[in-house]
Amino acid sequence: MTDILETQKVQARAWFESLRDQICGVFEAIEDEVTGPNESSALPPGRFERKAWQRPPDGKITDGGGGVMSVMKGRVFEKVGVNVSTVYGEFSEQFRAQMPGAKDDPRFWASGISLVAHPRSPLVPAAHMNTRMIVTTKQWFGGGGDLTPVFPQDSDTRDFHAGFRAACDKHDPAYYPKFKKWCDDYFYLPHRGEMRGVGGIFYDDLHTDDWDKDFAFTQDVGTAFKDTYAALVRRHMNAAWNDEQRAAQLIKRGRYVEFNLIHDRGTRFGLMTGGNTEAILMSLPPLAAWS
Amino acid sequence: MTDILETQKVQARAWFESLRDQICGVFEAIEDEVTGPNESSALPPGRFERKAWQRPPDGKITDGGGGVMSVMKGRVFEKVGVNVSTVYGEFSEQFRAQMPGAKDDPRFWASGISLVAHPRSPLVPAAHMNTRMIVTTKQWFGGGGDLTPVFPQDSDTRDFHAGFRAACDKHDPAYYPKFKKWCDDYFYLPHRGEMRGVGGIFYDDLHTDDWDKDFAFTQDVGTAFKDTYAALVRRHMNAAWNDEQRAAQLIKRGRYVEFNLIHDRGTRFGLMTGGNTEAILMSLPPLAAWS
Repeated sequence: MTDILETQKVQARAWFESLRDQICGVFEAIEDEVTGPNESSALPPGRFERKAWQRPPDGKITDGGGGVMSVMKGRVFEKVGVNVSTVYGEFSEQFRAQMPGAKDDPRFWASGISLVAHPRSPLVPAAHMNTRMIVTTKQWFGGGGDLTPVFPQDSDTRDFHAGFRAACDKHDPAYYPKFKKWCDDYFYLPHRGEMRGVGGIFYDDLHTDDWDKDFAFTQDVGTAFKDTYAALVRRHMNAAWNDEQRAAQLIKRGRYVEFNLIHDRGTRFGLMTGGNTEAILMSLPPLAAWS
Repeated sequence: MTDILETQKVQARAWFESLRDQICGVFEAIEDEVTGPNESSALPPGRFERKAWQRPPDGKITDGGGGVMSVMKGRVFEKVGVNVSTVYGEFSEQFRAQMPGAKDDPRFWASGISLVAHPRSPLVPAAHMNTRMIVTTKQWFGGGGDLTPVFPQDSDTRDFHAGFRAACDKHDPAYYPKFKKWCDDYFYLPHRGEMRGVGGIFYDDLHTDDWDKDFAFTQDVGTAFKDTYAALVRRHMNAAWNDEQRAAQLIKRGRYVEFNLIHDRGTRFGLMTGGNTEAILMSLPPLAAWS
């Protein structure tokens, strides 16, 4: 059984890194393709820069592993970060009770990919995607993706959701309605009475009796995100935008900052447990405004 | 005794509103005085706009009171907000245990002033000041002020602290060292390993046996802030700055956002208890950046 689990860990990690490579490739191609007409066309096409990081020895969760941040500051993507990480060790006392299967045995292993894209054009939606495999005495997958347009278009929202719906329906017809609602409930700013964006899917604690099936689903979620989001970026990236639209984008990004710093569990968990600050806050926009 | 307390409440509230008027007057005078040389001199002098707000009826803390926000978007002050509020009611179950003197009787009354200034020039330090009087079955004062320069100057730090030190020493030689340390401990970003700025003073639960003395101290803190901060703004507001300095300012403001949304107790308390979001988040900068 242990050998199988070790093989599964290797497979999951390899997938997250492969997905990162695929996405970076597509996003760099998009950087080459854009033709303007705003200042983006005057800038050189962006390229990802990679930076490895290690779990700090004084982190509140002991002890091993690390990750690689890939960040591109381009002409379509004003800032996009893709982080892959594989970490392992023991949860502190504080977190044992909160994590499934960790109460009596604090050892854990976690591998995943997370991505946040902040396009330069206010007409191109921002997006987030994250998938992960976690092992304690239990094992599960989690993740999802969501879209944050400044000016929502029904056709974009429909197409983004359709991609995730197809990935879900292939595995279980109950997944999409459940995971869509989970996303809507999660990405909500109570103090503003606003949704963060137009949703997507969000899932956690996914463990049927069939690891291969759960892993295949998680792979399909990543691929669906890559394909549908790239299509939306290409749909809007050459459209002209004005200063008023840009100002609205910066305000919308302020809300994004509020969500991530006040509410996002992953961000707060990471910062409170001595995670890699640069990797955790890679999600923050390059520029944001408050009225 | 009750009559005396009611008189004290009236006096405190009147002071916070008077201090607001004094500060707005000084800051508007500064807007008139500036001569450039950056784009600030091409803009019209700013003026404060006031907006009253009421405690929302569905707030998680019942029930009364409200406040007035004064916001100026000017040429020296890119954004400065001064909020005065007087609120009263009953703490929810959740907060009774946390608030001094509220465990067995949840009624409270609180009045105060809070100010955050984000200057346009990266050479003019940002600043925060807040003082308040709180009444439960106990009564106390709290507050302080701190300075956040992008490019700290020893002479500015010295003068800012000297103003508070004089206000403290007039009342008790133990105040300044204690309240300076409290400020340094509070305005710290553990996930960045950075201080928010160059400090100032911070105090809470101040209740000697002499209300008049405590109130006089709180008045002196407000006056010291007004005088020393206005002097620092005037010292630097006409100096030329460049794009590189402006970019550094926007990054520094990003740290300010991180502190307020992740750590600041007042901000988190307010947002979690259904406070007025616009008034609470008035502290956020008009524009901020992340690298």
